[in-house]
Amino acid sequence: MEHFSDRLADSIISRRSLVCVGLDPALERMPPTLVAKYRREAAAGEDEAVAACFVEFCAGVVEAVAGTAACVKPQAAFFEQYGAPGWRALVDTVACARAHDLPVILDVKRGDIASTGAAYRRAAFGGAPGFAAPVAGVAADAVTVSPYLGDDALTPFVDACAEGRGVFVLVRTSNPGAGLLQDLEVDGRPLYLHVADAVARLGAPHVGRHGYSDVGAVVGATAPAALHAVRAVLPHAFLLVPGVGAQGGATEALGELKAGDAGGLVVNASRSIIYAWQEGGADYRRAAADAAESLRRELGPPA
Amino acid sequence: MEHFSDRLADSIISRRSLVCVGLDPALERMPPTLVAKYRREAAAGEDEAVAACFVEFCAGVVEAVAGTAACVKPQAAFFEQYGAPGWRALVDTVACARAHDLPVILDVKRGDIASTGAAYRRAAFGGAPGFAAPVAGVAADAVTVSPYLGDDALTPFVDACAEGRGVFVLVRTSNPGAGLLQDLEVDGRPLYLHVADAVARLGAPHVGRHGYSDVGAVVGATAPAALHAVRAVLPHAFLLVPGVGAQGGATEALGELKAGDAGGLVVNASRSIIYAWQEGGADYRRAAADAAESLRRELGPPA
Repeated sequence: MEHFSDRLADSIISRRSLVCVGLDPALERMPPTLVAKYRREAAAGEDEAVAACFVEFCAGVVEAVAGTAACVKPQAAFFEQYGAPGWRALVDTVACARAHDLPVILDVKRGDIASTGAAYRRAAFGGAPGFAAPVAGVAADAVTVSPYLGDDALTPFVDACAEGRGVFVLVRTSNPGAGLLQDLEVDGRPLYLHVADAVARLGAPHVGRHGYSDVGAVVGATAPAALHAVRAVLPHAFLLVPGVGAQGGATEALGELKAGDAGGLVVNASRSIIYAWQEGGADYRRAAADAAESLRRELGPPA
Repeated sequence: MEHFSDRLADSIISRRSLVCVGLDPALERMPPTLVAKYRREAAAGEDEAVAACFVEFCAGVVEAVAGTAACVKPQAAFFEQYGAPGWRALVDTVACARAHDLPVILDVKRGDIASTGAAYRRAAFGGAPGFAAPVAGVAADAVTVSPYLGDDALTPFVDACAEGRGVFVLVRTSNPGAGLLQDLEVDGRPLYLHVADAVARLGAPHVGRHGYSDVGAVVGATAPAALHAVRAVLPHAFLLVPGVGAQGGATEALGELKAGDAGGLVVNASRSIIYAWQEGGADYRRAAADAAESLRRELGPPA
């Protein structure tokens, strides 16, 4: 079974890109042509119509960035708002990205006790029992998980690394309130570094031929000092770095974090890429492609 | 707008029950009569058939415990495994519980940056924008949320208290690995008490006529010392106490945690109630009703 970390590394190297495009669809930011098209369907079901609009929008973005992005990160919340049709749109969007050979990091930030964690793993990666055959699930390549419940919340996902999946554990997030718990000092070090220790321990048995672990860490670009401290603890893990673009994080310092032949990090931008059309006025696909290419150049080559 | 805490308190008082029934449907534990019935539908779609089976099973449990349980807690993971049909089954299950006047705590343990958190809030409580009208969402009464991202991950949900919703923040969970982060000592106190401080602060503006806050805390029955320490920090919050039954937590010491006219806590049991039929061999509804009644008596009156 090919390692997730190798699929991601190969994608980074072949596309010479460290860009992760976040898919956060919001109705109020859909392009007017799509709104006009799907508004007509709303009478038959608001949630169905919005979900169909999201599928077309996300497919357009995925196709537009398929040459310049290393991977994509659909954010489950934006789909879950629209119930069952929204969930189906998420599944369709993941399938579209995989059809373009883009690894998919499903951003769900789940974390629960072991029996529930196993159910969340099956939701993301498939394998829930059916009457005659297992169910496919979202079929993502990797997921984000939250560490608050400790090891047994992480291990159901980490175990899936043996089946070619990946995990990104929240270590130091990009939001203003992240410090409330994550920066608290425990034994002379911030809490988030204790989480990084757990990531290193859990990820050690799951290393691919490129030398990266399948268990990575989410570390926000808005906390540059944390980025360097986490890299020191995790020299062989992929870092998933959100917070550039709309959240204000800078890309300049990220070059120093590169490690190995595929850089060892992917930098996520969501709104600044998928809604770039609102700035420049161009077709949303063209604007997304340009914004992704611009970020790709800003981040430089992987190694 | 009626406070969530008042709806929960009224339900506890009128049913003289501190029991929360967890709805964690698993195909491998469905009663044989339901398996036989829905297996026939699986050819048309495994996920649809399992989801339909879950809806009937959960409706049977809800109806059976409607007189003895104070509330129910569907666990989203078990539904999400079955994709869009699973999500629809979750929505149907929540609607069924509300039709029986049972407050619904949606166990999702979400927690994300503010813009995403707002989307998760709308997924749970409704209000996502449609083309002409907002979308209903799962329409739960309350949700569980994870604190790792700090205040801005909690406030989107806390803000919904003004609209009659409730929030239970994970403070000290019931699983074996909970201690990895939650018990770490920060300034001489375990981390989970710092989370309890945040719950107290965020919940203070949202107090109903029974004197309870709409912002409660999840504290596992498997950690009795933590329960008492959290109650000391949160004298006016509802505690949601998982971990009795299948997880092995004892109920004896819980009496000392009662506070106010409605006890100020609900004790969740999932597998030991909904799968009680596997022990006694009775009809699953009868067995669930008996198990819920037995736990109700064990916990004693609310005040």
